[in-house]
Amino acid sequence: MNILFIMYDQLRFDYLSCAGHPVLKTPNFDRVAAMGVRFTQAHVQSPVCGSSRMSFYTGRYASSHGAQWNGYPLRVGEMTMGDHLRALGMGCYLIGKTHMVADAEGMARLGLAADTVIGARQSECGFDAVVRDDGLWGEGPDGFYDRKRSPYNEYLKEKGYPSDNPWQDFANAGISGDDIASGWFFRNADKPANVREEDSETPWLTDRALDFLKTADGPWCAHLSYIKPHWPYIVPAPYHDMFGPGDVPPAVRSEEERRDPHPVYAAYMGNRIGQSFSRDEVREKVIPAYMGLIRQCDDQLGRILDHLEETGQMESTMIVLTSDHGDYLGDHWLGEKDLFHQQSVKIPLIVHDPRAEADATRGTTCDALVEAIDLAATFVEVAGGAVPEHIIEGRSLLPFLRGEVPEAWREVVISEYDYSVTPMRDVLGLSSRDARLFMVFDGRWKLIHAEGGFRPMLFDLKTDPEEFHDLGAEETYAAVVERLYGHLHAWGLRMSQRVTRSEGDLEKMRGRAARVGILPFLYDGSEVPEALTVKYRGKAGADFTKG
Amino acid sequence: MNILFIMYDQLRFDYLSCAGHPVLKTPNFDRVAAMGVRFTQAHVQSPVCGSSRMSFYTGRYASSHGAQWNGYPLRVGEMTMGDHLRALGMGCYLIGKTHMVADAEGMARLGLAADTVIGARQSECGFDAVVRDDGLWGEGPDGFYDRKRSPYNEYLKEKGYPSDNPWQDFANAGISGDDIASGWFFRNADKPANVREEDSETPWLTDRALDFLKTADGPWCAHLSYIKPHWPYIVPAPYHDMFGPGDVPPAVRSEEERRDPHPVYAAYMGNRIGQSFSRDEVREKVIPAYMGLIRQCDDQLGRILDHLEETGQMESTMIVLTSDHGDYLGDHWLGEKDLFHQQSVKIPLIVHDPRAEADATRGTTCDALVEAIDLAATFVEVAGGAVPEHIIEGRSLLPFLRGEVPEAWREVVISEYDYSVTPMRDVLGLSSRDARLFMVFDGRWKLIHAEGGFRPMLFDLKTDPEEFHDLGAEETYAAVVERLYGHLHAWGLRMSQRVTRSEGDLEKMRGRAARVGILPFLYDGSEVPEALTVKYRGKAGADFTKG
Repeated sequence: MNILFIMYDQLRFDYLSCAGHPVLKTPNFDRVAAMGVRFTQAHVQSPVCGSSRMSFYTGRYASSHGAQWNGYPLRVGEMTMGDHLRALGMGCYLIGKTHMVADAEGMARLGLAADTVIGARQSECGFDAVVRDDGLWGEGPDGFYDRKRSPYNEYLKEKGYPSDNPWQDFANAGISGDDIASGWFFRNADKPANVREEDSETPWLTDRALDFLKTADGPWCAHLSYIKPHWPYIVPAPYHDMFGPGDVPPAVRSEEERRDPHPVYAAYMGNRIGQSFSRDEVREKVIPAYMGLIRQCDDQLGRILDHLEETGQMESTMIVLTSDHGDYLGDHWLGEKDLFHQQSVKIPLIVHDPRAEADATRGTTCDALVEAIDLAATFVEVAGGAVPEHIIEGRSLLPFLRGEVPEAWREVVISEYDYSVTPMRDVLGLSSRDARLFMVFDGRWKLIHAEGGFRPMLFDLKTDPEEFHDLGAEETYAAVVERLYGHLHAWGLRMSQRVTRSEGDLEKMRGRAARVGILPFLYDGSEVPEALTVKYRGKAGADFTKG
Repeated sequence: MNILFIMYDQLRFDYLSCAGHPVLKTPNFDRVAAMGVRFTQAHVQSPVCGSSRMSFYTGRYASSHGAQWNGYPLRVGEMTMGDHLRALGMGCYLIGKTHMVADAEGMARLGLAADTVIGARQSECGFDAVVRDDGLWGEGPDGFYDRKRSPYNEYLKEKGYPSDNPWQDFANAGISGDDIASGWFFRNADKPANVREEDSETPWLTDRALDFLKTADGPWCAHLSYIKPHWPYIVPAPYHDMFGPGDVPPAVRSEEERRDPHPVYAAYMGNRIGQSFSRDEVREKVIPAYMGLIRQCDDQLGRILDHLEETGQMESTMIVLTSDHGDYLGDHWLGEKDLFHQQSVKIPLIVHDPRAEADATRGTTCDALVEAIDLAATFVEVAGGAVPEHIIEGRSLLPFLRGEVPEAWREVVISEYDYSVTPMRDVLGLSSRDARLFMVFDGRWKLIHAEGGFRPMLFDLKTDPEEFHDLGAEETYAAVVERLYGHLHAWGLRMSQRVTRSEGDLEKMRGRAARVGILPFLYDGSEVPEALTVKYRGKAGADFTKG
């Protein structure tokens, strides 16, 4: 079986019709949901691109792999799904975005050059890169955000878009009279991007994926990783005006949230992003574009599904649809992601397993507490391996696909956030070590622990599904807080770095010492079993004690 | 300045005359103590050879580096003092033991061969190995414990000791009639080892160190790492009968300890080692040999000190004397190390800094809470560097040597123990993840947390300096227990894997995105400062929206 692991960027869990969106129709996402299982309680390990993705790819928590924010390199040697799958005979390919930054210092220390196979995989997060494009070809006085050549930009140039940076000047900009209407500015979000629809990013990457599917030798795992519906929020015709202000759901926010908020939440509400998304005109410009981008993603997904069906590959391909985090879109007076309301930390996760064992669950949902790190474990099992539990901290989801309930499934989800390099750290006056948040969620209660001496935040999603009422300061809930802290503290002491010895290795070590002649703590040797008798070959040697 | 970092193996903190031993005289240890500072509250990160040493060498807690017991390979790429010091222009050499096991799988994955400079350093824990000999050349039905060639064994063969394994048959055995009296058996501990004293392990390694000192180019850090006084407990003449049963201090143990002990402690008391060392005849055989081994170490240390003085190197050499852990020797009804009574977890630590700034503290003691990981930090500072706090978790001891009290020094020491591969795990019926212990010690109160659902152990060293009364089950001390758990839990959430970004790197990242053209969350661009103005180069390009 092959695995088509499709990730969207910043796609909210509830902006799909199968997940109940009141306006937006996503027939192709729904088509996969009808063929598989939709997980309704899937969470990222960190609500920010880079860190979340490194958790998906390594199967490890953010503070286990250490790449805890965008641009923190993943340390050299940290194993990813590519390493695990290739060892099982399954190729592992990248088509699109990872947000990976190579550990150049670590690679230099180990003498690894990026132009070797091993070095390239270390640089590309363990994938063999068919196409790597992180889709943020921003440019400013210090140069480009992405430092690599953008295959997408090169494509646009070949297609005749007259700019050194057509990503910025065409694909992510509209026209305003004789000038460019930058897609960076929300004011322009309702304009059509000045690019032929088939040349825009999502169809371009879909073409690359179809090229791959036409020639790939299996078994393979292909990570098709779209930049959209991530900002800049601008989309080409006809998607730019499919939705209008009247299609924008009301903001999920309450005045109560602004009364005496937790200091960390207050800092986020007060930042430029929160301020901006709290304006209705911003939501009314941005959200229709966001919906258009998703609708375009859905159409492109349809092309892939059609291809798989037409070529008979659907029967041999696991399909996974997910996202690296959500998007507040003005809910809770916030924009972007970063914090742990479900708009940010929850993700869509739909898994189609074509095998007969999964027939019973097709078209169902599963509300088990699922984490992003579970996918790496799942894929290892699909590739025929046993999950290396000393490295991968997630658990395989295959039992759920067969309708089974795995034994001792996790009681809580953990998610983390490192905001060391953000302005909110300054607002709160914290050291870089204290600018960290941890979420513990048991399916009902959500505790958010903030380092730096703050009280916790607490939400009861049963009585307050919209997460408006922060109960963290209320004595009534002390026992709940204590219980969730218990989970957090147990997790803090977890065994996460014993990566060079598997459970099996440990079993083999037991008793080994005696069998290789380490026999201490014996009085006279009568305690030594015959089988372990020490061989002496220097018997009756000269007496050397006289020197 | 150079650094001579001398480590003994299993040397108890209190088996030195400068530390108050009632019988044993160690004039050369005392000589260094008179020239420097003796730290009276120095602790290992894990009371077992391999794990403790990996913490010394990396400057990181055991659960940060992951090599949590003997024989767990240190993961490839994990930085050690060798990496840090060489980057600062200081060579870093090994003469003796490390207990390092290379991460062969990780090295293979990264294409690193052990016969290259980089591969050799990865294999040798970051050191350039002048001599590597772990000094355990045990042999049994499955072959040798150490898999490398033993330079010491080769030396003995060259010297004419007639055996394939003279380490076992001569250096660690006496004579009993026509037969070998194995040093493995305590019964033989009072016999002289059948080896010329100058050919025994400690003088042999001292000769190698003197060879190094005669030719080394500085600045250097040399890790002179003796196997002794570690078992086998047998020592050549004249050291074998310098001490007798009458010189053995009474066992530090109490009948109270055997009444309703904590299950983990009970399992250790019940093992073969504990049973053996609870016999007075064992203590009376072993301890005189142990003292003889230490006395020999002291004499050999004298040779080194004399050489440094004679050659004028004493003025340019920092000397550090320490051990990787202690030895119960029957105290608390235990042998070996493993648990956290001070006989096991405390170590001797004497530091001589020849520089004038350290004159005021010569011959003094320091009772600050010190950890083994502090040495790597100290050495980085000696080499002229700033401690990379995102990697090295210890702190420099140099302020103490200058008589200063560093700001916000640690409030607790943490030590850990992984007993997954020991019989005690079976006795307690635990999974390998639960076979772990953590110590939190604040200078007075010592809490021991055992994973696996046990109550904690608690000792008050102020009222019970011998650690006989486990208060962990007493409600009276609930607040103390809670406070120490608070420290443990905060430590569990520490930032230990963000190793690819220093604090300085994080500072440089702040605000970078805007300067490379990432300008989201703007309504109309009026919010963009002039300096960040986006350049558009595709102005007035064709309208591509018509396709």
